[in-house]
Amino acid sequence: MAVGTGAEGYGVFPLRSFLDFDIRDGPDGATVAFLDVDDRHLNPNGIVHGGVVFTLADTAMGRATMAVLDDGQTCASIEVSVRYLRPIPGGRLVATTSVIRAGRRIVHLECRVTVDGDERPVAVLQGSFAVLEA
Amino acid sequence: MAVGTGAEGYGVFPLRSFLDFDIRDGPDGATVAFLDVDDRHLNPNGIVHGGVVFTLADTAMGRATMAVLDDGQTCASIEVSVRYLRPIPGGRLVATTSVIRAGRRIVHLECRVTVDGDERPVAVLQGSFAVLEA
Amino acid sequence: MAVGTGAEGYGVFPLRSFLDFDIRDGPDGATVAFLDVDDRHLNPNGIVHGGVVFTLADTAMGRATMAVLDDGQTCASIEVSVRYLRPIPGGRLVATTSVIRAGRRIVHLECRVTVDGDERPVAVLQGSFAVLEA
Amino acid sequence: MAVGTGAEGYGVFPLRSFLDFDIRDGPDGATVAFLDVDDRHLNPNGIVHGGVVFTLADTAMGRATMAVLDDGQTCASIEVSVRYLRPIPGGRLVATTSVIRAGRRIVHLECRVTVDGDERPVAVLQGSFAVLEA
Repeated sequence: MAVGTGAEGYGVFPLRSFLDFDIRDGPDGATVAFLDVDDRHLNPNGIVHGGVVFTLADTAMGRATMAVLDDGQTCASIEVSVRYLRPIPGGRLVATTSVIRAGRRIVHLECRVTVDGDERPVAVLQGSFAVLEA
Repeated sequence: MAVGTGAEGYGVFPLRSFLDFDIRDGPDGATVAFLDVDDRHLNPNGIVHGGVVFTLADTAMGRATMAVLDDGQTCASIEVSVRYLRPIPGGRLVATTSVIRAGRRIVHLECRVTVDGDERPVAVLQGSFAVLEA
Repeated sequence: MAVGTGAEGYGVFPLRSFLDFDIRDGPDGATVAFLDVDDRHLNPNGIVHGGVVFTLADTAMGRATMAVLDDGQTCASIEVSVRYLRPIPGGRLVATTSVIRAGRRIVHLECRVTVDGDERPVAVLQGSFAVLEA
Repeated sequence: MAVGTGAEGYGVFPLRSFLDFDIRDGPDGATVAFLDVDDRHLNPNGIVHGGVVFTLADTAMGRATMAVLDDGQTCASIEVSVRYLRPIPGGRLVATTSVIRAGRRIVHLECRVTVDGDERPVAVLQGSFAVLEA
């Protein structure tokens, strides 16, 4: 378990500082993370590395989970699945995360990643997080 | 699709330089990635961020895929799933990747992440990569 | 690969006859499968077996994939992931499937399963299918 | 959640009776399910339906989970992922399930499906189950 992943969205940590992304509360209870692609996000073939997309979305899912928990609770990711739909050469990545089901023990989420104003997703994720008493 | 993910294992790119991990060919056709945990890999709760584990394993799976392709072929990740089994406070992460099935069009892989000499996995992944003509 | 899964939605086969479900084209390009729960769908604890939900949704995803292919093409499921959100004691299962991305080689889909008129999902799935020349 | 999935392996239920498979304890703590393919398991293209493979493996994973729980506990599947590696025209399916990690709250498992004596898998699955107080 990656205990406390949920808190990452609220804080700053070295990988987030390196990748340089922002997270905000979105409309309709969504959590939205933003990342402006530059050279540090690319793989040797000149497109965004899958680990960058995953880290952006996973951090947003952690924050979205924390937002539905009670005081004194934290969360740990159980399983996350990512599907890569299109190569991403650049632009502003927007990772929009929604809670599918907030249970007492498990929170399930989905995340859709787009680039700039293009509505077509470049990646989609689903994840399940355990609710823990801190 | 994260086209060319496979080549990442062979080259150096900014996220790999930041995370500072190594990849080598292992026994029995496996590909093994190593990462010595330090502060840059931690989340605000002092354990390794899920995105670090994912990036390490995804890069190893990409390299392992490239190793079974013909000249002139490259690969793109279709879907990767990660399960987090235990929190990781530190140590040397070892991500051991094996090809489950190398088809003409799709390569399926699995990856087991352990810490130091402890055989119990801290995370497991499975992934499916598309084979592309470069 | 489960070659030709896509065609299952159009035809009748023994498992579908046993489970007794229907599939129709839905609004906005969706494919919708319906199943009226009775004793044959339950596990020993009196709730719907996970395999029933999976088979319903997988068959709907296969049909939705076939609907976006050209003549002479068929499909094979690469990977399907299911999340179980709530126990299902009975009612009419409705599995609504949408294509996320119809690529030339890979089709990605998602499916949301609800019961009767309740909008809250009881299960969600995502899947990736390979496009094959028949 | 498919509450009580774990108990299915021990009991008989209509879908299991229809598919006609057997489950036994295997070597090294594994749980093994067997299914002899006949016409009832096939899709319209004459190969085993993905839902048959899933149901066999999911039921085996439920039983393997129950085997590591305490008296008075039951389980519910959170997420299960299946990868289809090869089409299956017939033979005896053997689904071998192992516990990857039996935590106090979550049990993670993997399952490898082969046909007859052929060691090459035709499908692989991973799943995560919640531990519940009955």
